[in-house]
Amino acid sequence: MRIGLLTGGGDCPGLNAAIRAVVKQGTGEYGHTIIGFRNGWRGVVDGDVHPLGRQDIRNVLPVGGTLLGTARFHPRQEDGSMDAVLATVEAERLDALICIGGDGTLHAASRVAEAGVKIVAIPKTIDNDVEGTDLSIGFHTAVNIATEALDRVHTTAESHNRVMVVEVMGRHAGWIAVNAGIAGGAEVVLAPEEPFDIDQVVKFLRHRHRAHANFSIVVVAEGAVPREGSMEFTQQLGRFGEIVAGSVGERVSAEIAERTGFDTRLTVLGHVQRGGEPTPTDRILGSRFGVAAVDAVSAGTSGVMTALRGERVELVPLAEVAGRPKRVPEELLRVARVLA
Amino acid sequence: MRIGLLTGGGDCPGLNAAIRAVVKQGTGEYGHTIIGFRNGWRGVVDGDVHPLGRQDIRNVLPVGGTLLGTARFHPRQEDGSMDAVLATVEAERLDALICIGGDGTLHAASRVAEAGVKIVAIPKTIDNDVEGTDLSIGFHTAVNIATEALDRVHTTAESHNRVMVVEVMGRHAGWIAVNAGIAGGAEVVLAPEEPFDIDQVVKFLRHRHRAHANFSIVVVAEGAVPREGSMEFTQQLGRFGEIVAGSVGERVSAEIAERTGFDTRLTVLGHVQRGGEPTPTDRILGSRFGVAAVDAVSAGTSGVMTALRGERVELVPLAEVAGRPKRVPEELLRVARVLA
Amino acid sequence: MRIGLLTGGGDCPGLNAAIRAVVKQGTGEYGHTIIGFRNGWRGVVDGDVHPLGRQDIRNVLPVGGTLLGTARFHPRQEDGSMDAVLATVEAERLDALICIGGDGTLHAASRVAEAGVKIVAIPKTIDNDVEGTDLSIGFHTAVNIATEALDRVHTTAESHNRVMVVEVMGRHAGWIAVNAGIAGGAEVVLAPEEPFDIDQVVKFLRHRHRAHANFSIVVVAEGAVPREGSMEFTQQLGRFGEIVAGSVGERVSAEIAERTGFDTRLTVLGHVQRGGEPTPTDRILGSRFGVAAVDAVSAGTSGVMTALRGERVELVPLAEVAGRPKRVPEELLRVARVLA
Amino acid sequence: MRIGLLTGGGDCPGLNAAIRAVVKQGTGEYGHTIIGFRNGWRGVVDGDVHPLGRQDIRNVLPVGGTLLGTARFHPRQEDGSMDAVLATVEAERLDALICIGGDGTLHAASRVAEAGVKIVAIPKTIDNDVEGTDLSIGFHTAVNIATEALDRVHTTAESHNRVMVVEVMGRHAGWIAVNAGIAGGAEVVLAPEEPFDIDQVVKFLRHRHRAHANFSIVVVAEGAVPREGSMEFTQQLGRFGEIVAGSVGERVSAEIAERTGFDTRLTVLGHVQRGGEPTPTDRILGSRFGVAAVDAVSAGTSGVMTALRGERVELVPLAEVAGRPKRVPEELLRVARVLA
Repeated sequence: MRIGLLTGGGDCPGLNAAIRAVVKQGTGEYGHTIIGFRNGWRGVVDGDVHPLGRQDIRNVLPVGGTLLGTARFHPRQEDGSMDAVLATVEAERLDALICIGGDGTLHAASRVAEAGVKIVAIPKTIDNDVEGTDLSIGFHTAVNIATEALDRVHTTAESHNRVMVVEVMGRHAGWIAVNAGIAGGAEVVLAPEEPFDIDQVVKFLRHRHRAHANFSIVVVAEGAVPREGSMEFTQQLGRFGEIVAGSVGERVSAEIAERTGFDTRLTVLGHVQRGGEPTPTDRILGSRFGVAAVDAVSAGTSGVMTALRGERVELVPLAEVAGRPKRVPEELLRVARVLA
Repeated sequence: MRIGLLTGGGDCPGLNAAIRAVVKQGTGEYGHTIIGFRNGWRGVVDGDVHPLGRQDIRNVLPVGGTLLGTARFHPRQEDGSMDAVLATVEAERLDALICIGGDGTLHAASRVAEAGVKIVAIPKTIDNDVEGTDLSIGFHTAVNIATEALDRVHTTAESHNRVMVVEVMGRHAGWIAVNAGIAGGAEVVLAPEEPFDIDQVVKFLRHRHRAHANFSIVVVAEGAVPREGSMEFTQQLGRFGEIVAGSVGERVSAEIAERTGFDTRLTVLGHVQRGGEPTPTDRILGSRFGVAAVDAVSAGTSGVMTALRGERVELVPLAEVAGRPKRVPEELLRVARVLA
Repeated sequence: MRIGLLTGGGDCPGLNAAIRAVVKQGTGEYGHTIIGFRNGWRGVVDGDVHPLGRQDIRNVLPVGGTLLGTARFHPRQEDGSMDAVLATVEAERLDALICIGGDGTLHAASRVAEAGVKIVAIPKTIDNDVEGTDLSIGFHTAVNIATEALDRVHTTAESHNRVMVVEVMGRHAGWIAVNAGIAGGAEVVLAPEEPFDIDQVVKFLRHRHRAHANFSIVVVAEGAVPREGSMEFTQQLGRFGEIVAGSVGERVSAEIAERTGFDTRLTVLGHVQRGGEPTPTDRILGSRFGVAAVDAVSAGTSGVMTALRGERVELVPLAEVAGRPKRVPEELLRVARVLA
Repeated sequence: MRIGLLTGGGDCPGLNAAIRAVVKQGTGEYGHTIIGFRNGWRGVVDGDVHPLGRQDIRNVLPVGGTLLGTARFHPRQEDGSMDAVLATVEAERLDALICIGGDGTLHAASRVAEAGVKIVAIPKTIDNDVEGTDLSIGFHTAVNIATEALDRVHTTAESHNRVMVVEVMGRHAGWIAVNAGIAGGAEVVLAPEEPFDIDQVVKFLRHRHRAHANFSIVVVAEGAVPREGSMEFTQQLGRFGEIVAGSVGERVSAEIAERTGFDTRLTVLGHVQRGGEPTPTDRILGSRFGVAAVDAVSAGTSGVMTALRGERVELVPLAEVAGRPKRVPEELLRVARVLA
């Protein structure tokens, strides 16, 4: 079989583990040919191929990012790019495509599958908001990095009696904020799942500083929203839904400083959250997903996504995972709350 | 309620996160009193109490080990220590016990529960071989440390054209070996789940060094066993089932050196695997288990263990988890094999 | 002897190592009494004492920040705070003071010494711009954190063909920028020591992206300044000389994006640079400085600062180190340039 | 110019940083040709060349080991290998050689220089015992790894009331033991510089466990030796002076266990100390030494070694650095002692 492989959407640690596994398992046991595409769907549209052999994947397991490159571009019917994808699939005589990506890539994969191309997808997103799988590639490393940042600002908060506000990624779901918040011992965690009341946050901090300890860590997911009427706040969104002006972290930090008089500082973690060496968990996840995707493709399966469910890797229909982002469950939100 | 709390068996990272969660959730929402015991069941037998308040758990979240101390001792009927446990429970007017421990502690908890004490257990073991839960406290950090060690010997193996044999923990199951092996890109992983044939190992290494690259990483779980007749090997076990003489890593290393002539070196990771700062995953796991255990105790539940199942924390009957160790599933063993 | 001890200025990793060494060496070999002051000079002014014994310094070696707390406050003649310092020294019957701090604290120490108090200072500043010593406490950890951030954005830069601009600390000298830039393989390093020409930066990046690789890392010290006429740029400075509006990183990032059209992203590292676990180097430096300071005080020496010079710890007169910040030498600036 | 480049002796982190700097600086500013040799002096003898261009050094900065490979082989007059070196230098029309290595490589470099070849050396050794330079490549990373191990066994020591003995590298000098011992808060540090008395060690531990805390960390350099008559101890040395049987760590551990009755465990760090990602310090050191070596060669200098002296990189005559290993100074040994 000739199998196309691409990574789409934002980069993250663990992608190379999945690429390596697809190449090793594909070219090894099955004897397939693996055709990589550069820069995500853009490379499929442009026919920008990068044949992948064992020599291309040497030493990539612990390296972040993606050796194939990636782009935030998805093929659509309207601009002819979907046709270009189909043309490339035919020109390269591909029997199937393996797409590694987040929500946008999975949607595109769904549409391409409907157009008759055999497709197996592998979920990656540091936000962890893909439905149907316990974990997506990249999330675990992001939580590690965010927790490490909380550990770091903790010592400064304590030494200077400050409120440290840390803004982390998470537009539609607060997985990073809640997990790093619990692991880093944050006093307040603001996640998109629960619109927050700035008055209550301020009240809680005042009480804590009076009664217990005069420093605090506040973690804010970039997609956290104030409860209606609680705080004025507007954001300006960019082309891909990213926030281009008006960070909720800035606003929350300013409100706390103004209302409490506490020395309050903001840290916006930003791009470091999606970079660097993947944790063992992300390397293992990428490896298992890569092997499972090749197995699925080899068995003729299509329109599915690899998924971690408990201790097992399973296949779930792409149709079931699209739509609303996976949200942090109440149990986890409560743990963040009660351990504050 | 008055709740006793102890940590038993070998120490590991994440125990303090669980202790902290029990104290915060117990003394906070519920208003319980938490009575810690020093050095595991030994402290219960001796009535060596350490009342735990919020000031005792400050800054312990990222600290490995257990602030309560631990011991490899379990109460038994025969020597009167079980009666001593019951006497202490009565003397301290305890409504329930929360026990954090591995297989031995869980067995003891079972027996104490049968004797009429309300008990909720929290599983910890870096070997991850407790049945009924996806993860036990300490395992995730151990995999991180072992993977880091593999990353380190990798560069030396490559620079010196060597076979590096790394022995990791895992007496009854190869969870650390298999996970670290996949994450660290090991060429051979020997786990208790699959008795190994040293001839095949040697054959594989010879082929690899001729055809691909003249260095290799071999990961050996301390409990790995040769297939009958494949290799002479005897171990001497100590009082708690620990290996006191004759490491399988030494034997495997010697056989490879002798049969291949390759420059072969052994590293026995040992105690560093169970020490140091817990990963965010172990801190979160300990926190969730601690909160869930207090919830269970407060609801009057007994004879159960907290367990991670997929994205949820559940309670499973202690009776169901005792006995045979949880083994690494075939899917994961296969991933380690095909990515070699 | 009764010895006062304080930490002043911004917190950083390694302070606790120095405090621990002062307490161990002071109370041990010499039998002195160590009187800590809370929150830097503020605590001396207010007589806010915290007597320090061996139990206070348990397990603090690997912990960032300062267990004494700190504040950006320095005693002056004008407001009576200098008199308050002298009054406290008399009230507490102190034979000498050990002050751990940066430029501001060292200046204050100088003035207090002139007023007749025996003083030995220990230099700390993550900026490493204290004259007379190869290293100050906190700098080494900051370089590690900044390098780690460069490693992380590196993979994203490469995967997305981006220019990643990273702003690091360094108001008067570019030690963090230059060292992390070299260690992290940055293509451009902008430091206060060499006013930069934005035209040349842009030209260099355009050439690189055409000829070699279409991604780049640009490190900007917060105190970097454009060559006159090269780029419009104004900053607003706060009370302690800190930048409160108009970051040079933002400006440089915007200019590069506008002039090259390359996808350009900014990361401002901020507070994480001064937090977290000290590196072994900072723990050793703090330990050696602490022991040396106690030795100096015990020998009756005053008006000096501990200093690392090559492999030796020496004492240098405070009078010699005040004034202009220590600048990055040309050799190091050149290494950053030629390895771009 | 045509410049040969090799790495000899044991591998360590930071070698690739030096190789990268030699290639960048050599091929860049100067327009030299850089000819790498595989596997140290062995490759020079065999004429096993590996021409190095900018594409060979991409992304190697954070990677441990050496991309050129290395071997513990040194050319000698007696076996004709010295003549083979000279023949290769002529055949490849080399104007000079840059050798990166430890004591053995530096000695060989000296002899090759005497035979008329222009040579500049760069010191590397994780033991840090090369005279004339504050630091050699690889040492700093080794101290970090050893300190991390001490941090890890610390939590287990405390949780289980144990004595943890950790054996680290250092045959002729105790640089790793003393530095990691200070950074990791060890109670006892045994280094080759000071023959130890096991009776005093045991007495100290007994006193500590009675008076202060019932756990301890003991760091032993592999080259530590008992004071005459204090403890029976013999080692068997291999071909390159490495210890092949009878580790001092084992002996010390057994003595402590026997004489004190304390639960005592040994960890031998071994190969992990020389592997993995170089610290920023080792990357910077390798980079500076690489640039300086090319500058020296280009200026026609020969028979020198690059050296770090305080904040400067200097050149020292090879003749001055051979012979006795650089020893840990008394000041540092004393800090380890007084902070115990």
